[in-house]
Amino acid sequence: MKKAVVIVAGGSGSRMNSDIPKQFLELGGKPVLMRTIERFVEYDPAIEIVLVLPKDQVSYWDGLCEKYGFTQSYKLAFGGETRFESVRNGLESLKEECLVGVHDGVRPFVSDQTLDNCYGLALECDSAIPVVDAIESIRILDEGSSKAVDRDLYKMVQTPQVFKCSMLKKSYQEPYQKIFTDDASVFEYFGYPIFLAKGNRENIKLTTPMDLVFGEALIGKL
Amino acid sequence: MKKAVVIVAGGSGSRMNSDIPKQFLELGGKPVLMRTIERFVEYDPAIEIVLVLPKDQVSYWDGLCEKYGFTQSYKLAFGGETRFESVRNGLESLKEECLVGVHDGVRPFVSDQTLDNCYGLALECDSAIPVVDAIESIRILDEGSSKAVDRDLYKMVQTPQVFKCSMLKKSYQEPYQKIFTDDASVFEYFGYPIFLAKGNRENIKLTTPMDLVFGEALIGKL
Repeated sequence: MKKAVVIVAGGSGSRMNSDIPKQFLELGGKPVLMRTIERFVEYDPAIEIVLVLPKDQVSYWDGLCEKYGFTQSYKLAFGGETRFESVRNGLESLKEECLVGVHDGVRPFVSDQTLDNCYGLALECDSAIPVVDAIESIRILDEGSSKAVDRDLYKMVQTPQVFKCSMLKKSYQEPYQKIFTDDASVFEYFGYPIFLAKGNRENIKLTTPMDLVFGEALIGKL
Repeated sequence: MKKAVVIVAGGSGSRMNSDIPKQFLELGGKPVLMRTIERFVEYDPAIEIVLVLPKDQVSYWDGLCEKYGFTQSYKLAFGGETRFESVRNGLESLKEECLVGVHDGVRPFVSDQTLDNCYGLALECDSAIPVVDAIESIRILDEGSSKAVDRDLYKMVQTPQVFKCSMLKKSYQEPYQKIFTDDASVFEYFGYPIFLAKGNRENIKLTTPMDLVFGEALIGKL
């Protein structure tokens, strides 16, 4: 089945202590978002790409594309008030049946293996999301106090979260709920089961200046 | 109250794909464990340090200390079969009442602020452990399936976990339980409450080759 990816780049620069939205910051001499898009093209040159950008960032992005000679083609969709709305807008661009991944624009280090795991499992099971083990001990807050939990029971969720497109679109027709923190939560709220695939630990979300330091270090080491 | 720290360095090199135990690997030209010890001395030159090492690693460590001209003084205790046993052995070296932190030998990036937070809160409340927010969505495994949880309710736990020494020693007289994954779990099993302090995200545990790449990048940036 044809592969597609909706790359969601709606972030601001606030957590980066930067005026430039984090997806546009340079990593190894190139904006993060370009690296993320290129990662998918490198994985599958035939993949259909939908880029979701806030309307007021489009001209800035276009300027970057010119500056960096970035000529990759993609469909553009506009971001909404919430990530939920942004993804829904992105999905509207996909007309044909496909396997669609929804991916954070600031995760340029997803590996071929993770992509194989996710698109492969979703082909079989209609959904697949990449997860990794928890490294630290975990505690749960509980009425002003906290208690230890068994970390072996918990998985940390990355992207791309991959789904059969028609089913994900159907799920996204539900009205927005506060518990919709990712696509899996929307899909499972609609009643579909979620399957877990193995992610790669390098597939970090670049959200703070420290993450950019880590990202710079990963460039060329992978 | 006087401060002390038990630095536990019992790891092997297996997850690092290395024959050298991870605490001895070089980071910015110096073994990780030396950096961790120096971090505490830099924070408080009067801090009492107990280093817990597996018996069969002591001569290798002594060789490293000679090679790198490392002359910091500390008490040495031997590691046990489990981390629990190692910490208990380390605590035996502390005779006087103090605030004791128990710290991973492979966390050289704990900040002064985190140390202030932990030792400060423990002075007031008898315990304090550093925690940070979860970055990723979290799922809990559940009878062959999994479900999303509210990540705002969860905290990721770092070290040093700091306690009033007499109380921690008392807790460590309990027989070992499988749920004792960190010192907080021992302390709270004994019936004492745990208080949470703010950690720093750079305070990562260096357990994989990727973490070493991150660690190298952090050197000099902090």
